[in-house]
Amino acid sequence: MRIAVDAMGGDFGLKVTVEGAVRASQEYKIEVLLVGVAELIEKEFLKHKTSSAKLSVVNAPEAIGMGEGILSFRKKKNSSIRVGAQLVKKGEADAFVSTGNTAAIVYISRKILGALKGVDKPALSLLVPSLEGITLLIDVGANVDCRPQHLEQFAVMGKIFMENVLGVQNPRIGLMSIGEEESKGNELTKQVFEALQASPLNFIGNIEGKDIYSGKADVIVSDGFTGNIALKVSEGVIETFFYMVRNEVMKNFFAKIGLFLMKRNLKKLYKKVDYAEYGGALLLGLNGVCIIGHGRSNPNAVKNAVRLAKDFVQSKVQERIKYEMARGFQAIG
Amino acid sequence: MRIAVDAMGGDFGLKVTVEGAVRASQEYKIEVLLVGVAELIEKEFLKHKTSSAKLSVVNAPEAIGMGEGILSFRKKKNSSIRVGAQLVKKGEADAFVSTGNTAAIVYISRKILGALKGVDKPALSLLVPSLEGITLLIDVGANVDCRPQHLEQFAVMGKIFMENVLGVQNPRIGLMSIGEEESKGNELTKQVFEALQASPLNFIGNIEGKDIYSGKADVIVSDGFTGNIALKVSEGVIETFFYMVRNEVMKNFFAKIGLFLMKRNLKKLYKKVDYAEYGGALLLGLNGVCIIGHGRSNPNAVKNAVRLAKDFVQSKVQERIKYEMARGFQAIG
Repeated sequence: MRIAVDAMGGDFGLKVTVEGAVRASQEYKIEVLLVGVAELIEKEFLKHKTSSAKLSVVNAPEAIGMGEGILSFRKKKNSSIRVGAQLVKKGEADAFVSTGNTAAIVYISRKILGALKGVDKPALSLLVPSLEGITLLIDVGANVDCRPQHLEQFAVMGKIFMENVLGVQNPRIGLMSIGEEESKGNELTKQVFEALQASPLNFIGNIEGKDIYSGKADVIVSDGFTGNIALKVSEGVIETFFYMVRNEVMKNFFAKIGLFLMKRNLKKLYKKVDYAEYGGALLLGLNGVCIIGHGRSNPNAVKNAVRLAKDFVQSKVQERIKYEMARGFQAIG
Repeated sequence: MRIAVDAMGGDFGLKVTVEGAVRASQEYKIEVLLVGVAELIEKEFLKHKTSSAKLSVVNAPEAIGMGEGILSFRKKKNSSIRVGAQLVKKGEADAFVSTGNTAAIVYISRKILGALKGVDKPALSLLVPSLEGITLLIDVGANVDCRPQHLEQFAVMGKIFMENVLGVQNPRIGLMSIGEEESKGNELTKQVFEALQASPLNFIGNIEGKDIYSGKADVIVSDGFTGNIALKVSEGVIETFFYMVRNEVMKNFFAKIGLFLMKRNLKKLYKKVDYAEYGGALLLGLNGVCIIGHGRSNPNAVKNAVRLAKDFVQSKVQERIKYEMARGFQAIG
């Protein structure tokens, strides 16, 4: 198996991506193609024991920064993200992994790879920790305006992913909405509710915002606008809260000692809820495998993203999605 | 001034609502009408020094529970919420305050009081704490499917409220969306963005989910579906997080001591972020004043909700909303 890794992605640059890629190649015995400025990648190789790793370099002289927008996505014809997606398109890599600009990866990989046969819209899907394990949120930002049939496709793809990549049997599918009852929601969710209830999926009904992390559902379906808001609000709440705790605790000597005594356990907890640990996001329904790691990824998180790519390729998820779509899951809405 | 208070609302019953109402009457020198089962209210009075308070009782033999749905809202013709809203309708009270079932209050008060002239949809608005003060989220659940003109009306009403009730000068209006750039968002938000930018409002652009609590905007506008998701996700994240911290910390002796040492400061912090402190939610654009306190309200929070009602009545917000709507703010979308 050959997996392409974007060397230019992530908030911490090649230092982290190259180390993660080297470790992934060694640990999973796979070939890794590092995509980016060749000179810089080779310089980075010198810092590592690469003897047991199977590595090669694919030159891509341009990089798309985290803050850049659609103009750069289009203009930079030699960006590492574009070159990486093309490797998958040409069959020179089985998957592409990047910790770069999410919007760029979504835009470029959809342009180059397109959707799987039968899928209307590839969906940005994210594994998040819950009180009981891991939940897949689909979509978290790729498709802001959706019709009911799109959300049903998301549900089917989410189910296939959780079953075949994470080994969750008969995954519980929830619909993100504003109340548990069938009557609660907007026009879109009410139609989707009806369709999912009539489907052979293990549909457990609406999931309210407060229950996203409770572990009630294995897959939570939403349009990309709502999913993105839910995700970003979560990040914002945690950040604001930590900031406030820090501020408040620093005012008091005993509280400071208290925080110090809790540090080790808080770190453990942080590791548990840090979604970099879970391999990141992915585009389900894409005609190719593309994994998007968190920008803040450390080498371990990059390695985990490569493992997710490997598991995904081996799982035959793509074939199953095509098969299910051909069976007519899209015939609603 | 006379304010009606729903004695039957809230998670803790009459004990809390009656105490809050008594204290509000004494502190703000206003008359409070307690609405609910007369016998129970009068029994509760005996527990308080009510000599300096101006109190009366309006009998309402039925109560709507926190978990009840639309059937009860319609069927219970003598619920405390319905009787309270009718007091406002008949001019026998200047405002109605309840800590009961939010959906019931929204449904019944809209049925009985209707919208202010020029307003299409009264909006559920919530004051939330931010890093820099207080932000008004509008709508957080009353209108799940909105057209652009509705969101512009929300913006105008939010501005008038913040200016006249909370004294915020030229409030910064933000639009809840999934990226800061104008091009980010769904069909709805993109149209609203354009309209708000062309309006005389102090529109500062899109606010991402992660910035809701940062204090960047004084008013954050959204449809009720998105706003409700954002709010409930926030509650869920905090609850899940506290649960996890507790669980993790209890595993270790030193961490337990650590938590103990931080307790006083965490309580202070909790008070800062507890939105019961701010008086609660309200229906802006309703033809009448209706304040919705949090179900978990303690007597102090009930008292604060009454204060918010009083400030609202004195502020002439209603007249200003009618005036602005007549000037044609609704002429878009």
